[in-house]
Amino acid sequence: MSIGKKVAAELFGTFWLVFGGCGSAVLAAKFLDSGNPNVNLGIGFMGVALAFGLTVLTMAFAIGHISGCHLNPAVSLGLLTGGRMPARDFAPYVIAQVAGALLGAGVLYLIASGKPGFSLDDGFASNGYGEHSPGGYSMGAAFVAEFVLTFFFLMIIMGSTDSRAPAGFAPIAIGLGLTLILLIGIPVTNLSVNPARSTGPALFVGGWAVAQLWLFWVAPLLGGAVGGITYNLLFGSQPSPKK
Amino acid sequence: MSIGKKVAAELFGTFWLVFGGCGSAVLAAKFLDSGNPNVNLGIGFMGVALAFGLTVLTMAFAIGHISGCHLNPAVSLGLLTGGRMPARDFAPYVIAQVAGALLGAGVLYLIASGKPGFSLDDGFASNGYGEHSPGGYSMGAAFVAEFVLTFFFLMIIMGSTDSRAPAGFAPIAIGLGLTLILLIGIPVTNLSVNPARSTGPALFVGGWAVAQLWLFWVAPLLGGAVGGITYNLLFGSQPSPKK
Amino acid sequence: MSIGKKVAAELFGTFWLVFGGCGSAVLAAKFLDSGNPNVNLGIGFMGVALAFGLTVLTMAFAIGHISGCHLNPAVSLGLLTGGRMPARDFAPYVIAQVAGALLGAGVLYLIASGKPGFSLDDGFASNGYGEHSPGGYSMGAAFVAEFVLTFFFLMIIMGSTDSRAPAGFAPIAIGLGLTLILLIGIPVTNLSVNPARSTGPALFVGGWAVAQLWLFWVAPLLGGAVGGITYNLLFGSQPSPKK
Amino acid sequence: MSIGKKVAAELFGTFWLVFGGCGSAVLAAKFLDSGNPNVNLGIGFMGVALAFGLTVLTMAFAIGHISGCHLNPAVSLGLLTGGRMPARDFAPYVIAQVAGALLGAGVLYLIASGKPGFSLDDGFASNGYGEHSPGGYSMGAAFVAEFVLTFFFLMIIMGSTDSRAPAGFAPIAIGLGLTLILLIGIPVTNLSVNPARSTGPALFVGGWAVAQLWLFWVAPLLGGAVGGITYNLLFGSQPSPKK
Repeated sequence: MSIGKKVAAELFGTFWLVFGGCGSAVLAAKFLDSGNPNVNLGIGFMGVALAFGLTVLTMAFAIGHISGCHLNPAVSLGLLTGGRMPARDFAPYVIAQVAGALLGAGVLYLIASGKPGFSLDDGFASNGYGEHSPGGYSMGAAFVAEFVLTFFFLMIIMGSTDSRAPAGFAPIAIGLGLTLILLIGIPVTNLSVNPARSTGPALFVGGWAVAQLWLFWVAPLLGGAVGGITYNLLFGSQPSPKK
Repeated sequence: MSIGKKVAAELFGTFWLVFGGCGSAVLAAKFLDSGNPNVNLGIGFMGVALAFGLTVLTMAFAIGHISGCHLNPAVSLGLLTGGRMPARDFAPYVIAQVAGALLGAGVLYLIASGKPGFSLDDGFASNGYGEHSPGGYSMGAAFVAEFVLTFFFLMIIMGSTDSRAPAGFAPIAIGLGLTLILLIGIPVTNLSVNPARSTGPALFVGGWAVAQLWLFWVAPLLGGAVGGITYNLLFGSQPSPKK
Repeated sequence: MSIGKKVAAELFGTFWLVFGGCGSAVLAAKFLDSGNPNVNLGIGFMGVALAFGLTVLTMAFAIGHISGCHLNPAVSLGLLTGGRMPARDFAPYVIAQVAGALLGAGVLYLIASGKPGFSLDDGFASNGYGEHSPGGYSMGAAFVAEFVLTFFFLMIIMGSTDSRAPAGFAPIAIGLGLTLILLIGIPVTNLSVNPARSTGPALFVGGWAVAQLWLFWVAPLLGGAVGGITYNLLFGSQPSPKK
Repeated sequence: MSIGKKVAAELFGTFWLVFGGCGSAVLAAKFLDSGNPNVNLGIGFMGVALAFGLTVLTMAFAIGHISGCHLNPAVSLGLLTGGRMPARDFAPYVIAQVAGALLGAGVLYLIASGKPGFSLDDGFASNGYGEHSPGGYSMGAAFVAEFVLTFFFLMIIMGSTDSRAPAGFAPIAIGLGLTLILLIGIPVTNLSVNPARSTGPALFVGGWAVAQLWLFWVAPLLGGAVGGITYNLLFGSQPSPKK
């Protein structure tokens, strides 16, 4: 597969991850019944977790055979340290992922701002810690959560795409793995494990969201890199010859 | 497979999509606890999103081997522009889809009207924009949402049925892809991405629902057509010889 | 496979369907937060729909290779009319299903009655219509709903186990198909599509539940029988030689 | 596969089960909207049930080919009595599982305590009965529930990994089987079916949680052992030669 096709797939895929995942949060998490403001008909954190996971599940089936469907710089780094990705692809992948994330956030903004009363001050699904953590979790707790969750995300990715695992199921394991990660951690940081996903909305919100963006690059990249190495050291790396 | 069998499959399948998807919304989205009207035991937008997706997942496994299980004029058009469907099948498919949608809405009406207090004025799961958007989203936002979401729906369909993707999993990718699409967009338009699904309930509700119906033909058909072309141009079209 | 093993599998499987499905409804649908009775931490209709479906999904993977995992007289009848099941197995299957349902309801009663304040007057997940329909739906609406939903349940079962469908996926299609059916119809009848499932709790509740039980035998059996025939007539019957 | 690799896989996997499952309960089950304390945006019992199941689903795909992915002393015992596991592996597996559970609970504590107002007195997702049952269920009801649910968990595991079942799907059947088990039983005991999962948080909470811990060893181990034997006796044991 040519690098041009791979880059196009990563761009479209990360667009979908940010548009769909953050879109479900911004548009649909809270939708109070018009007749009773105590009743939320919206999808809540559970629906947002499912939506993020399904963006990855659907794209892994749709473009996995093109680019591997990373959609995430931390995943690309972990696959690099885990011996599953050529180093020359890393930079183009990350650039395409961040570009796709920005475009996805942009189109989401177009739609979201079509509702009277919309405001970027509500966070636009940006990630944060401390006073910008949904549940008020400290910077240390946020860092540990992002690190550990990205570490296990890479364990799941490395393991389910191992040639010894059942063939064809990796998109389900990885997509629902991301759903699980969000079921655990939305209250802590609004959950990233993905620097591109964090960057998209943050550049629209600016201010605090950009100031806190460093953590959502550093912790996931570290967790991903260590996850890829760990799986490889413990269990050996045997990528499927053909997914 | 004869065109007669294909048409029968599309008719039954689209009946199921409209009966099941719109049925879950009309019958079960809101069900307040008899003891406490602040507690919704119903399935909310999340359950409706899951129901729509499962109508497609179940039918794709049940009749995918008969007709391909499009159940949607925008999907048929996208597969036509993507080089996956013979042109002579297009018109019969669309007619069967619309007929199935009308029948599905009809049987749903039979059941729903068996509850005292039922009224078509509550919308009967019709799609709408502006003052008829669940969340009050503008016509422009509605058009962009329906276009983008149908575009990605076709990317998922084209990719997951590509011969290079894992065989047998496409119904999961496509069904849960529709669930994802609804998790994002119910508040915007009640979510269509499917002109047949929109037409079924709209003809029962009449008035505004029919007047706004054009958008739910134009935007999904455009999004579907562009999606089919785009996948084909970017990644080549390699349909599974045998799904 | 001997008829003894088949009967044992159907008995255990239907125990699980009733214990798990009705159990989720009785034990977990409504669980108000101790600090705020306006907040339901329980699983609602959506969780009950998922639970019923997962009882079938899990058993279809666990005992499908033993008995075919019908767990439901209406399914057995539909597979009989659809040409997929020898007539001599029908009676033993139905007897095992009803016995399993009664045992499942019995063990559920043991657990549920271990909570202070438990009462069978709350319905014990029995099916009902008219004043015993959760949403007050009429007998006619209840009959149509049970008929149509069982009809499509058989279409899904016949189609997904057809030798032309992808091999191995039928338990997912059928299990999540039952989830979908409940997402649509819990408010109408508490949803049966399964005479054995209806009989289990009804015999514990007695009175109205037994008086209304006829509908939950007649409508699902009719819907199942017509569903099996219809798939066979329209698309031909090609059971997988080996699931 | 060396016992060292197996033990490492069980330790990481059980870490993930406890960190992810209990983490979703502690961090995300209840998250009241800042603007309206009657609206819960959190994931509720349904999200916790899904999270526990997905920890197993993801790890079964990721490390199933290394250790079989038991993550649970009751599962290991059931596979031993069911003739699927060499006796010499039992003790190392259980030790690794308990160690992983403790580490998982420890890292969860690190994150959870980063929120002002966190207290172990809220239970830290420990299992309990009587006055420590979420719904006030008696010790007897708790014992029956844990026994029956672990029994069926083993039936699902033995059956779905049987060589006669469709290959590759067992992680889905088993993971979603655990989700189903929690959908039924969270109100009864906070649901264990896994002595290691119970031990992790209990050692942090101390007091009543440790005093009641015996039940969450005895009932699941009994249920698992009887489940493994029963499947073997009824249907014969035919493990997949290669999962």
